Amino acid sequence: MNSKLTKSEKATLRERAEEAWRVELEESLTEDIMKTFVMKKVGEVGFVEKDRPECGSLDAILRPTKGLICTSDVHTVHGAIGERKNLTLGHEVVGVVEEVGELVTKFKRGDRVAVGSITPDWGSDAAQAGHPSQSGGALGGWKFANVKDGTFAEYVHVNEADANLAPIPDGVSDEAAVYVCDMMSTGFMAAENAGIPIGGTVAVFAQGPVGLMCTAGARLQGAGYVIAVESVPKRQELARYYGADEVVDFTKVDPVQRILDVTGGEGVDAAIEAFGASKVFKQCVMVIKPGGKVSNAGYHGEGEVIEIPREEWGVGMAEKDIVTGLCPGGRLRISRLLRLLENGRLDPTPMTTHTFQFLEIEKAFRMMENKEDGMIKPLIDFGR
Amino acid sequence: MNSKLTKSEKATLRERAEEAWRVELEESLTEDIMKTFVMKKVGEVGFVEKDRPECGSLDAILRPTKGLICTSDVHTVHGAIGERKNLTLGHEVVGVVEEVGELVTKFKRGDRVAVGSITPDWGSDAAQAGHPSQSGGALGGWKFANVKDGTFAEYVHVNEADANLAPIPDGVSDEAAVYVCDMMSTGFMAAENAGIPIGGTVAVFAQGPVGLMCTAGARLQGAGYVIAVESVPKRQELARYYGADEVVDFTKVDPVQRILDVTGGEGVDAAIEAFGASKVFKQCVMVIKPGGKVSNAGYHGEGEVIEIPREEWGVGMAEKDIVTGLCPGGRLRISRLLRLLENGRLDPTPMTTHTFQFLEIEKAFRMMENKEDGMIKPLIDFGR
Amino acid sequence: MNSKLTKSEKATLRERAEEAWRVELEESLTEDIMKTFVMKKVGEVGFVEKDRPECGSLDAILRPTKGLICTSDVHTVHGAIGERKNLTLGHEVVGVVEEVGELVTKFKRGDRVAVGSITPDWGSDAAQAGHPSQSGGALGGWKFANVKDGTFAEYVHVNEADANLAPIPDGVSDEAAVYVCDMMSTGFMAAENAGIPIGGTVAVFAQGPVGLMCTAGARLQGAGYVIAVESVPKRQELARYYGADEVVDFTKVDPVQRILDVTGGEGVDAAIEAFGASKVFKQCVMVIKPGGKVSNAGYHGEGEVIEIPREEWGVGMAEKDIVTGLCPGGRLRISRLLRLLENGRLDPTPMTTHTFQFLEIEKAFRMMENKEDGMIKPLIDFGR
Amino acid sequence: MNSKLTKSEKATLRERAEEAWRVELEESLTEDIMKTFVMKKVGEVGFVEKDRPECGSLDAILRPTKGLICTSDVHTVHGAIGERKNLTLGHEVVGVVEEVGELVTKFKRGDRVAVGSITPDWGSDAAQAGHPSQSGGALGGWKFANVKDGTFAEYVHVNEADANLAPIPDGVSDEAAVYVCDMMSTGFMAAENAGIPIGGTVAVFAQGPVGLMCTAGARLQGAGYVIAVESVPKRQELARYYGADEVVDFTKVDPVQRILDVTGGEGVDAAIEAFGASKVFKQCVMVIKPGGKVSNAGYHGEGEVIEIPREEWGVGMAEKDIVTGLCPGGRLRISRLLRLLENGRLDPTPMTTHTFQFLEIEKAFRMMENKEDGMIKPLIDFGR
Repeated sequence: MNSKLTKSEKATLRERAEEAWRVELEESLTEDIMKTFVMKKVGEVGFVEKDRPECGSLDAILRPTKGLICTSDVHTVHGAIGERKNLTLGHEVVGVVEEVGELVTKFKRGDRVAVGSITPDWGSDAAQAGHPSQSGGALGGWKFANVKDGTFAEYVHVNEADANLAPIPDGVSDEAAVYVCDMMSTGFMAAENAGIPIGGTVAVFAQGPVGLMCTAGARLQGAGYVIAVESVPKRQELARYYGADEVVDFTKVDPVQRILDVTGGEGVDAAIEAFGASKVFKQCVMVIKPGGKVSNAGYHGEGEVIEIPREEWGVGMAEKDIVTGLCPGGRLRISRLLRLLENGRLDPTPMTTHTFQFLEIEKAFRMMENKEDGMIKPLIDFGR
Repeated sequence: MNSKLTKSEKATLRERAEEAWRVELEESLTEDIMKTFVMKKVGEVGFVEKDRPECGSLDAILRPTKGLICTSDVHTVHGAIGERKNLTLGHEVVGVVEEVGELVTKFKRGDRVAVGSITPDWGSDAAQAGHPSQSGGALGGWKFANVKDGTFAEYVHVNEADANLAPIPDGVSDEAAVYVCDMMSTGFMAAENAGIPIGGTVAVFAQGPVGLMCTAGARLQGAGYVIAVESVPKRQELARYYGADEVVDFTKVDPVQRILDVTGGEGVDAAIEAFGASKVFKQCVMVIKPGGKVSNAGYHGEGEVIEIPREEWGVGMAEKDIVTGLCPGGRLRISRLLRLLENGRLDPTPMTTHTFQFLEIEKAFRMMENKEDGMIKPLIDFGR
Repeated sequence: MNSKLTKSEKATLRERAEEAWRVELEESLTEDIMKTFVMKKVGEVGFVEKDRPECGSLDAILRPTKGLICTSDVHTVHGAIGERKNLTLGHEVVGVVEEVGELVTKFKRGDRVAVGSITPDWGSDAAQAGHPSQSGGALGGWKFANVKDGTFAEYVHVNEADANLAPIPDGVSDEAAVYVCDMMSTGFMAAENAGIPIGGTVAVFAQGPVGLMCTAGARLQGAGYVIAVESVPKRQELARYYGADEVVDFTKVDPVQRILDVTGGEGVDAAIEAFGASKVFKQCVMVIKPGGKVSNAGYHGEGEVIEIPREEWGVGMAEKDIVTGLCPGGRLRISRLLRLLENGRLDPTPMTTHTFQFLEIEKAFRMMENKEDGMIKPLIDFGR
Repeated sequence: MNSKLTKSEKATLRERAEEAWRVELEESLTEDIMKTFVMKKVGEVGFVEKDRPECGSLDAILRPTKGLICTSDVHTVHGAIGERKNLTLGHEVVGVVEEVGELVTKFKRGDRVAVGSITPDWGSDAAQAGHPSQSGGALGGWKFANVKDGTFAEYVHVNEADANLAPIPDGVSDEAAVYVCDMMSTGFMAAENAGIPIGGTVAVFAQGPVGLMCTAGARLQGAGYVIAVESVPKRQELARYYGADEVVDFTKVDPVQRILDVTGGEGVDAAIEAFGASKVFKQCVMVIKPGGKVSNAGYHGEGEVIEIPREEWGVGMAEKDIVTGLCPGGRLRISRLLRLLENGRLDPTPMTTHTFQFLEIEKAFRMMENKEDGMIKPLIDFGR
């Protein structure tokens, strides 16, 4: 940005730009083609035009109102899940129902809805086994920006709409609701998986937006003492806001030693890995007491293996179990998370550090790569 | 053995030797000292004399009748748990109560009893948390031949006798009962931890005595298809005897590929690691379906780390949980296992490939090191 | 039957009758109408002709080969679920796929399949919550002969075919497979719900076909001692065949006292109610130890209330939990049960005491009302 | 009280009385006898002198500082658990360790401690099975004022002191800590047993002190909507203070209908019975959705049976499970609850509506019978 302009000149320019984008978007809405923000190939992103998605008999088409960019979108562009050609990015979105298939009974055009980032096939064996996020194979419920186009588009296709959409209650804003799709669902899942006893002790490693929601989730599960491991001041501050009793700065002290110290040497009941690295995972194994749990929320994007430290794992016999999960989706889950917002249990919007118009998304994306300007979550406003 | 002697001459010699041992043992019984088979230091075993153990108010003193040697005794002597000086070895034993402390109410001199290899402190925090085997710290319930003298002795000290001893039902022989202490308790635990759905599929890696009891345990838990991975013919045969539907010889085929093939590519509901090696552990992660479980029974004695294969683990999100445990002990557990023997649910004695008198134990121990002569479990007869 | 005919004359007559039925059925197959055996109104059954069911896009149409009559069909006719007009009865069936909807991908015409008696809506909130049998309201997954036509028809409609059908393995006969639909699924569910510890003790009240499968299920779950309560000799015999260690004849001894006696006064770990009466339910509460479970399998068809005995329930504090369920359905469940048959875990066919041709079903039905001639389960042969 | 005295005269009289009590207590402390407040027989209470309790090798003797009266003390005096002669009442107490047995290692004279109302035998079969409150038989962990003298005494005997005492953290007052013994442990237990999904809906019937802690516990477990059923204004107010989103006055509306209405007809995920009456229990069964849970916290003191409404229970098949429990005790549990207080998760002291000196306890007891003057919990101050 040109810093020589006055603040008011910049505001005017911004207003004009937003007006221009709105017009551009509205024009495209009258046509069968739409703008989408895609991964053109590994390492390259940009806008392309695509045909509007078609609506199958069980499906819905959504017009997004608000979205969020996720670090995993960045990973994807860097090649974490392999090559993709012009794949529409994004998986965190709320919006308005544009169209539903003829077998859809619970939603209709105009409904204000959220959709989980994971949209399972509910009849699959995995869903019947209680693992809907794995429907159709490992991580198979993860469809947006993985096996089909994602949510950074003017229209978004939702499979099994009756089962995967949830109505947003009147008292909940789009800006808050969009956090249920992934951040709250994933973070709370990790806290639930951790099996925290009421009054128990928990360490949460990393306080990015998922880690912050792990911290909030640990509190919602009744933890008696929550230790957050984080070095970035803004994130430390939010960690305390969401309920951490203590914040450990791993750049200043050894987090393993510190956690053992504050627990009288015995370790915590549960550790949550919200970073996604073998080194951090090992620390989780080290800080839990025998009989404790490591709950993994992190996306492990690198290396051949994740390592379990043999001795601290009690040579495989210390009852230090390792539990994992992938962002639970589905109408019921999403509705329950929205209920928490409706009844004031927490406010996720302090995590929104920046806001961008849809057509500005490339800039937001670039900033997300390096978490520039203290970025935690950039909100994408679809301008409607 | 001198092979030039006739069979009958050898039998006579053996009879004389057994008579001599019996006299020697009986003499020592009248004294306050007793014979024990110890780890003198890393790499060296042998008999030493020790004072008889004293009986605290909550304790019992046991006179062993039958015992078993465990591979973990061999690991211990090789230094797996560090240096020990004249530590009495052994942790699988049944016998007769010789003496009880004044606060013991459920047992009296003369009772025929089994004692779990793990003898927890039942009032400890870990036991209150549902992890008695971890009482007093990681693996802290494991006292015999670890933090106190083991069971290869003329008298054995049992802590918290009311809670850690179990009466042996009349219809159950000592030779069978001695398998509940560790082999059945550990193997069945691994099957229970595996969370096998009724009619589900299970792979058990390695069919040593613990692995065989994992196989039997999988059947007792309702598994619909049990695949045992093993290369030794005698163990393969026992695997089938204890309920394996298929045996995979890993020296002939890649077990991961084979297990995926027989399950139509989807993998098994659970894999049990009954070997104790990072390589085998990785295979377990690879053969389970998303949402499946790896249940660890193996004692991981080597290496800095146990490795989880990142991709096959679904980058930490495939809901492939890892559960561990340490041989559950305690009167209730041991009694339930004895009930299974009493009511003919299984016969563990086919695992007894060899029998030795107590004073012959050094030979048995040496054979156990290399599993000579197809040894699976050597029974120790204390001659009473 | 006319007993004055010779055995050979009777056989000839029967052959002719069967031939006549076959011709009658085959003729109707060429038309759009079909024969169905219905509840005409409370208290009245009979055959009526109906249009063949239509196949929606997610559905399948099945041609039955073998079916079973269930006691609950009898209850239904007596008015247990209220009035119904010409409702086709039956919910236990195997057959051949005749037609599938255009969205069905896992099955095709000609496939040999089983369908659970409960056919859930897998996208419903209840299914997402882990309670598919309750999809769409209490017992809402129970559609056959409840909210839509049942299986005693030449053609049967199956909702969500991909999720609710299961292929029958080659080695499993239709006669055996038909037991997975309800008897095995319900009986095993009750055993699973009972939370039986390995080696634990279980009492199963009533040994009708569901009760027998509770007994078999308790064994498959690792029970160490199974006590069956039953007075009918044939059922007592089958109870032992399916794994009861002891059978208590409640007409000769007080079953509560007997069960307390054989457990040394402490009671059993779990009691399964497989009868469906408040009186029996109370006995279940009485015979479990504190911390034990009552698992309900019985259909409670009478009375305003089911009674919990206050004192024996420990004034609400004895941790005697009460768990319930409704026959789990779905491809995964049914496939796992078929796997148990495929691998010889049990043989349900000894429960088939009688066999009838489809057009003889009214007679079978009448006999089922009073369990005439020692009837346990009557198999219905659809003649193809 | 004589209302004709001025406020200041009354204060002076009270001061003198307290001084007199203090002297009387101090004198008795130098002797081997002590004052205790007992149930003399059914229907009669009063002070008697008893010998100080003796301290066994595993035990501790406690000098109470603060105690609470529980409604169950009132039930006991009315004969709910049968006749008792001069049984010391009370089971909620904190204090200072006076003496420990020679096998006690974790506590010493002078330690400030809380003791759970339930003091299990940790080596018992029931404790090994995960049901310590049932050790030694139904409700067997409940010893105070049941099978041995209770806590309304100058000295209190605690069995298995290492396992049943917990140190009170410095930042926690005795006045708050005394709530962990029963109110918080029982109320939170009921919320934990209810299996509340994060964001789920809960109804809590009755908002006495246990019910209020059920409400607080439901919030600590992540409930998204908590409905409290209560008619007394002060209790309604506290229900909101502890987290109820809605309060239903059952004297003004039918609570079952109201709960169904506010949940769109589907009912709640869980209902907690915190009253102890068959009628209320039935309402709990009625208001939960299929697949929901009834969690019982109430002490059912009357009637032969507790009734389950047959139809609303789905004829035994609606997966409406019933779970029960008895106030978990033990060092670990009590320590976790104290940690919640230490870290400001809740403040139980608003439930203390009245305070009495120990020697005034009879008056407190009489007021508790009818909950006079809006009494919720009367705190007993032992004057040290």
